[in-house]
Amino acid sequence: MSKARIGLVGLGVMGANLALNIAENGFPIAVYNRTTSHTDDFMADAGALADQLTPCHEVETLCASLTTPRAIIIMVQAGAPVDSVIDSLKPYLEKGDMIIDAGNANFHDTRRREAALKEEGLNFIGMGVSGGEEGARHGPAIMVGGDPASFEVIRDIIEAISAKYQDSPCADHLGTDGAGHFVKTVHNGIEYADMQMIAEVYGILRDMDGRSAGDIGKLFEEWNAGPLASYLVEISAHVLQASDPISGGPMVDMIVDKAGQKGTGRWTAIEALTLGESPMTIEAAVGARGWSAAKEAREAGEKIYAGLEVQGGAHAILDADLEQALLAAKIIAYSQGFALLDAASKEYDWNLDLGRCAEVWRAGCIIRSSMLDEMASAARAGLPNGQLIFADGFAEKMKDASGALRRVVAAAALKGQPMPAFSAALAFFDTMRKGRGTTDLVQAQRDFFGAHGFDRVDGKDHHHGPWGSGLKSF
Amino acid sequence: MSKARIGLVGLGVMGANLALNIAENGFPIAVYNRTTSHTDDFMADAGALADQLTPCHEVETLCASLTTPRAIIIMVQAGAPVDSVIDSLKPYLEKGDMIIDAGNANFHDTRRREAALKEEGLNFIGMGVSGGEEGARHGPAIMVGGDPASFEVIRDIIEAISAKYQDSPCADHLGTDGAGHFVKTVHNGIEYADMQMIAEVYGILRDMDGRSAGDIGKLFEEWNAGPLASYLVEISAHVLQASDPISGGPMVDMIVDKAGQKGTGRWTAIEALTLGESPMTIEAAVGARGWSAAKEAREAGEKIYAGLEVQGGAHAILDADLEQALLAAKIIAYSQGFALLDAASKEYDWNLDLGRCAEVWRAGCIIRSSMLDEMASAARAGLPNGQLIFADGFAEKMKDASGALRRVVAAAALKGQPMPAFSAALAFFDTMRKGRGTTDLVQAQRDFFGAHGFDRVDGKDHHHGPWGSGLKSF
Repeated sequence: MSKARIGLVGLGVMGANLALNIAENGFPIAVYNRTTSHTDDFMADAGALADQLTPCHEVETLCASLTTPRAIIIMVQAGAPVDSVIDSLKPYLEKGDMIIDAGNANFHDTRRREAALKEEGLNFIGMGVSGGEEGARHGPAIMVGGDPASFEVIRDIIEAISAKYQDSPCADHLGTDGAGHFVKTVHNGIEYADMQMIAEVYGILRDMDGRSAGDIGKLFEEWNAGPLASYLVEISAHVLQASDPISGGPMVDMIVDKAGQKGTGRWTAIEALTLGESPMTIEAAVGARGWSAAKEAREAGEKIYAGLEVQGGAHAILDADLEQALLAAKIIAYSQGFALLDAASKEYDWNLDLGRCAEVWRAGCIIRSSMLDEMASAARAGLPNGQLIFADGFAEKMKDASGALRRVVAAAALKGQPMPAFSAALAFFDTMRKGRGTTDLVQAQRDFFGAHGFDRVDGKDHHHGPWGSGLKSF
Repeated sequence: MSKARIGLVGLGVMGANLALNIAENGFPIAVYNRTTSHTDDFMADAGALADQLTPCHEVETLCASLTTPRAIIIMVQAGAPVDSVIDSLKPYLEKGDMIIDAGNANFHDTRRREAALKEEGLNFIGMGVSGGEEGARHGPAIMVGGDPASFEVIRDIIEAISAKYQDSPCADHLGTDGAGHFVKTVHNGIEYADMQMIAEVYGILRDMDGRSAGDIGKLFEEWNAGPLASYLVEISAHVLQASDPISGGPMVDMIVDKAGQKGTGRWTAIEALTLGESPMTIEAAVGARGWSAAKEAREAGEKIYAGLEVQGGAHAILDADLEQALLAAKIIAYSQGFALLDAASKEYDWNLDLGRCAEVWRAGCIIRSSMLDEMASAARAGLPNGQLIFADGFAEKMKDASGALRRVVAAAALKGQPMPAFSAALAFFDTMRKGRGTTDLVQAQRDFFGAHGFDRVDGKDHHHGPWGSGLKSF
């Protein structure tokens, strides 16, 4: 029996789909799953693709079924299971073999694993895969980190299975060690922001305008034909128009509003803060998911504040304003995301090409949108002061759309409609438009109570205030 | 020569002031500083207090000068310097001796040090001290973590030197290992939020109303006689009215608006996210400080958006609304802070008494305010669903003041005045008032692309949507 080009461990939905994708693209692949009956079921369902698939019931068989140097994809739950699979593989690997973690790993783990395996002569690739089940099966976006030479060994496979944007593969090597998983993490952080912003718009239409889920879905469908065209707007239109098979009413109305999370949005925020960045639209989206889980508290809050009269403004929010506001908030979220990628690239010496990151996101992944190609061009040209909102083209879009963002945030504030991500986006935008902010007062306070000192606008060498000691303390 | 009750390493401003405070309260104290001339200078300036002070030029002498079991306070820069001092002390310590870190340590370090020293038979206390220079000298708030029995050995000293609120010491043992430093970290996170919110109000008055720093200072002085009475409002009033000795104009107008930070605000946000919490007003304050440092980018942004016409609402913001808005935003920030303390207490088994934490903050520390006693009572009574905004008294305050918060956020949004902390506070408040939020749509999206599943509002066992596969993907 001829040997397979690549192996895969973990036949969950994502792993199984990735394996079928690889097989369909003509690469012989050996597969293994801890629960062996699962492997048999997988093979039974593989149809004509079974010819390309070598099922293995033992890790040892898997390793023996591969051409050398071996390349084995792991697609299991992030965290300890990955280490456990690596340990189980090692006895059957030889120097120069390669393990590829295609799960949603924390990039710190990827860096650790890459360094540890390198000492044993093994190559380790951290590969972020986005696109959900469908993407894994028919073409995901793939963000690769690790040794560049190792990636060249599997480049043909990875490019073949990836999504294509105008024939260009949405897959590339982006940097060493954890770079791929970090870019995937930020992708997910932006995904959180995108999803939350769409949900905030939905909230205005549902709660302030009293529109049905179906009507809102139709409006999103219209928007998907314009500048907001994107996978997430498209699927929002789709799911909002779906009917619940049990009640017959809109499906979303039957869904409990407690959002789950698998951690990547939260990681994005934590890593950002660690790097000195504050992507507040992503932080707001992480917050909103967290607060959604506190449903009992929210229900209690609704009762406590039931008598609260919320003053509303006189003006209704126009659909056209909502569309423009979403566009503006989205550009701001991406601006923060790119700034974060840049900060991490400097910290970890990845030399990330932000334009290439955006290009890889143009198809296959969850945040794909019609704007990403233009974002990629802007990033390639160099983002002024590291911000997309300052780039040619996007500054013009912001000039056109930011007024709508203001009107929406203001109206929602007056009406009591929560818009954490939108208002965080606006606050950032307005902060970054002001050469003279207000932290002169913060610096004065800090100097007063902690003698922290300050710089003067005239550059003079005089770093403390004449505060005196006469303050009769509170 | 009689031996001293306590020792202190590190005669920087904070350490020197703490030593003088201890001496003034009648406790003999031995002091040491790495640069020995500094110790001599300190003694020369100590005046009558010199009788209580034993200067030491060697760590060994310091340890030999103390009654046993020894208690030695370290007040040096947080991080590696603390470990280095601990290492230098250890050879001269005996089992049962105690080291007290009074710096702004990361509580993870405190946990690590406490565990490591316990193995060697030494006690370690992590002690958060707030109040700036003045507080250290005349009465800070002191938050103690570590072995309770060890604290009893020094309780008389710590209580004596602490600030008093109506004769009650603002110092206590709050929990084991890192509890004291964690409570201090959250204190600082709230301090960031308080300072940022005051700065946002200042921005409205300065940039939208065109008022002078002195006038704004006078307004803050008035507010300090009302429900906003607090150290930070008081010192803001004071510094805003100070004149620059060089130009003669307002001092703050000469201060560069780039705020520094020593990390505790950022730690608060990182630890919160790690614990699954999102104290967005604190996160916004951390963000605002970070963005303030990007002055070049902001100046570039001002140029790029110079032509942008920002539509303003017709209504001016009333001073009374600003005052009420600040009150509301502040209550929200504290609500998030208490929720964070509670989450950490559960995670680390500290059994934190939130009422006691608030009591310790009533005097001496930077965030002391007239509201803290009422907050302490509310926390003692148990915060409904863990949120101060739901507590009796505070819910009423929020009902009265939240309308003003809405009007301020809305007007600022329309006028282009950035209010990251205010708008984050409002978004949280409005989220927590809604039993039915909008993450039903997020759950539908997640189920669509990742088969993540959802719960139904009718409790039926049917966890996926009828999405079909007919979606023609973007």
